[in-house]
Amino acid sequence: MTQLEYAKKNLITPEMVEIARVEELSPEEIKELVAKGEVVILKNTKRDTIPTAVGTKMRTKINANIGSSPEKMDLKWELDKLAVCEKYGADTVMDLSLGGILNEVRKKILASTRLPVGTVPIYQVGFELARNAKHLEEMTIDHFLSVLRQQGEEGVDFVTIHAGITQKTWQYIKEKKRILDVVSRGGSMLCAWMEKNQRENLLYEHFDAILEVAKEYDMTISLGDGMRPGATADASDRAQIEELITLGELASRAREAGVQVMIEGPGHVPLDQVVSNIQMQKSLCNRAPFYILGPLVTDIAAGYDHIAAAIGGAVAGAAGADFLCYVTPAEHLSLPDLDDVKQGIIASRIAAHTADMVKNPARFRKIDDEMSRARKALDWEKMFSLCLDPELAKQRRSISGVKDIYCSMCGEFCSVKTLQELGLL
Amino acid sequence: MTQLEYAKKNLITPEMVEIARVEELSPEEIKELVAKGEVVILKNTKRDTIPTAVGTKMRTKINANIGSSPEKMDLKWELDKLAVCEKYGADTVMDLSLGGILNEVRKKILASTRLPVGTVPIYQVGFELARNAKHLEEMTIDHFLSVLRQQGEEGVDFVTIHAGITQKTWQYIKEKKRILDVVSRGGSMLCAWMEKNQRENLLYEHFDAILEVAKEYDMTISLGDGMRPGATADASDRAQIEELITLGELASRAREAGVQVMIEGPGHVPLDQVVSNIQMQKSLCNRAPFYILGPLVTDIAAGYDHIAAAIGGAVAGAAGADFLCYVTPAEHLSLPDLDDVKQGIIASRIAAHTADMVKNPARFRKIDDEMSRARKALDWEKMFSLCLDPELAKQRRSISGVKDIYCSMCGEFCSVKTLQELGLL
Repeated sequence: MTQLEYAKKNLITPEMVEIARVEELSPEEIKELVAKGEVVILKNTKRDTIPTAVGTKMRTKINANIGSSPEKMDLKWELDKLAVCEKYGADTVMDLSLGGILNEVRKKILASTRLPVGTVPIYQVGFELARNAKHLEEMTIDHFLSVLRQQGEEGVDFVTIHAGITQKTWQYIKEKKRILDVVSRGGSMLCAWMEKNQRENLLYEHFDAILEVAKEYDMTISLGDGMRPGATADASDRAQIEELITLGELASRAREAGVQVMIEGPGHVPLDQVVSNIQMQKSLCNRAPFYILGPLVTDIAAGYDHIAAAIGGAVAGAAGADFLCYVTPAEHLSLPDLDDVKQGIIASRIAAHTADMVKNPARFRKIDDEMSRARKALDWEKMFSLCLDPELAKQRRSISGVKDIYCSMCGEFCSVKTLQELGLL
Repeated sequence: MTQLEYAKKNLITPEMVEIARVEELSPEEIKELVAKGEVVILKNTKRDTIPTAVGTKMRTKINANIGSSPEKMDLKWELDKLAVCEKYGADTVMDLSLGGILNEVRKKILASTRLPVGTVPIYQVGFELARNAKHLEEMTIDHFLSVLRQQGEEGVDFVTIHAGITQKTWQYIKEKKRILDVVSRGGSMLCAWMEKNQRENLLYEHFDAILEVAKEYDMTISLGDGMRPGATADASDRAQIEELITLGELASRAREAGVQVMIEGPGHVPLDQVVSNIQMQKSLCNRAPFYILGPLVTDIAAGYDHIAAAIGGAVAGAAGADFLCYVTPAEHLSLPDLDDVKQGIIASRIAAHTADMVKNPARFRKIDDEMSRARKALDWEKMFSLCLDPELAKQRRSISGVKDIYCSMCGEFCSVKTLQELGLL
């Protein structure tokens, strides 16, 4: 049985108990939220994953994308990235591998971490077709389902399924109403399949069969947004919102079938549209957990897109987004390296924590207040321990060469010192 | 006459004409906004400064703080920082030098740039007292005014004056209602002066005399927020808002006297209080330009505070803040180095541009759309030219070792390629 089925039967699982402890709620509350579909628990029944909850009242989670590309296939490098994810506090990882070592990377990642692991199964399908000198349009639903089952057996915890793309949304794109058409890799593959076969999206048509396989392993379905805007100019347009409506319908079907489901979201979105994007998703998808890819609030920050995404992610999170996919400084330019992975994770954690301070101040502002007290006490060791990156903070202070208790910014003109001398301790 | 006096007399100055050109408005509109005090033009009459407008309908400006500290006095290093400010697009610089070379640094900066330069004159006063073995509490208004006049003669364009701190706000701090008391250096100096002299803040008491000197050189007064929260826990409290009310009164007095004035703002502010902080300032200060120091939306991001500030700055800017003071990755840890200055500027520019896309989409989203079109065309040279940091973007692509037109993230699985093959060009 899936966590959702247990919850619907009013049964509390050991995973719910564990999550209740971590999230500072009662097991009863967790069960209720899972039963309503407002929370999903990422954990394949076949693997010893850390049960991780995404959704209403949960801490905002962050995901790091790793994986090989056709241009760079290096298994060890991917495992090094995984180590960076663990060290800097990613809550989940997605293996988005493409290219020849795709299956090997996924298996090794699954064996090397207890973090929930997500994938985009259509990449494996596309790879296997290419290996057999077939074109993408020859993809069959049986092939797709067999790949999905294989990944379920291996222990994949959540899978992106682009089932919401339809001929209708594709028609909109073909009318050239967008600047940047389709930027989702999986989405573009399905557009090509639909166009060449002149048929409806096979993942949409066979969604019930997909649900059956997902249910077997309690894989959470992450309904992909193939029509997500890749340009701020394309945000909140008909293609995006029509797909979102379809995703809402599919989410209802998943829940009815006992399959846990979340929704993926934009993308590139101007800051003043971020909140309404979250509200629309919550409304159209019956408050299913929202897993967002940014959003990037400007298109011109390549090299620094982790910052553009932190702005969008913080605002989206505060408005109710539940799960932030990191964006690294490599976005739009290249495959991320180890430092990019680190920078992406830290930026996402800042966004997630900023959102959590708004969502639940009593729980999440404690650490900020502790930091502020440590600052007043000029207690550097305490400050370091509360930082998102204690090593870096310690190193920065040490290379500044400062010898006394103040920092190299103000030295003896430290305002904390001045106030202490006035008797405010 | 000051720009404000000209505007009030319905006269259009050459500076207004130049600003109208840059800001894509008519000289008439600029004059009206200056006359109302909603826009200030940063330019000392004694120096060949690039006239730079801050306020309603103007592009959101960013400031970079540089300057020596008692722990690090190196004139050349400060000039190197200034070069970084010019290269990466700071609109203004503030010289916040402390320590023995303070006067030398300021003079050299003023001689080396046409960017508007701001200072905090009380630092020079404090330095000169210390040099003569005097205590801060021996500061006199005559000494302060002579320093202000000296800096006006030298060509300083805007000065931070902490005239809004009063015994009443200080009393609140003494009652220990805050976690982090006073974090403004200038603010803490004036608290010490008030406490030891048991008198009202001398800058508040002698504000008219300060206005007289400022008027002589058309130095814009930036009313400092000595009570700005340095902890998210202290945000929007009585000390902060009471000072803001006083700043609003002082701003009215400055405008009546023909002196251009803007207001400095927080500080550390939780994300859900950022918008109301901007609304309060605009309301309490008759829409005087708002110059904000962050705000930082969490206290735990030391080492990455430029990101926490970009989140706060973008949201504040979109809500109406006019001028963003950068925050660098060194904040809370040390004096920024050259790379910190660069990182701080880029992060602030992302925040400012994000805000401008909301404030005036027709004007500011053009470049984003150009970038999106370049992405669709896979025109890398064009993409680089539109980036905030073309050098970095180019270098990233080149070190990724990719040889074809796609990037090392997706290679041949590039969604743009897939769509091109479907005939969408």
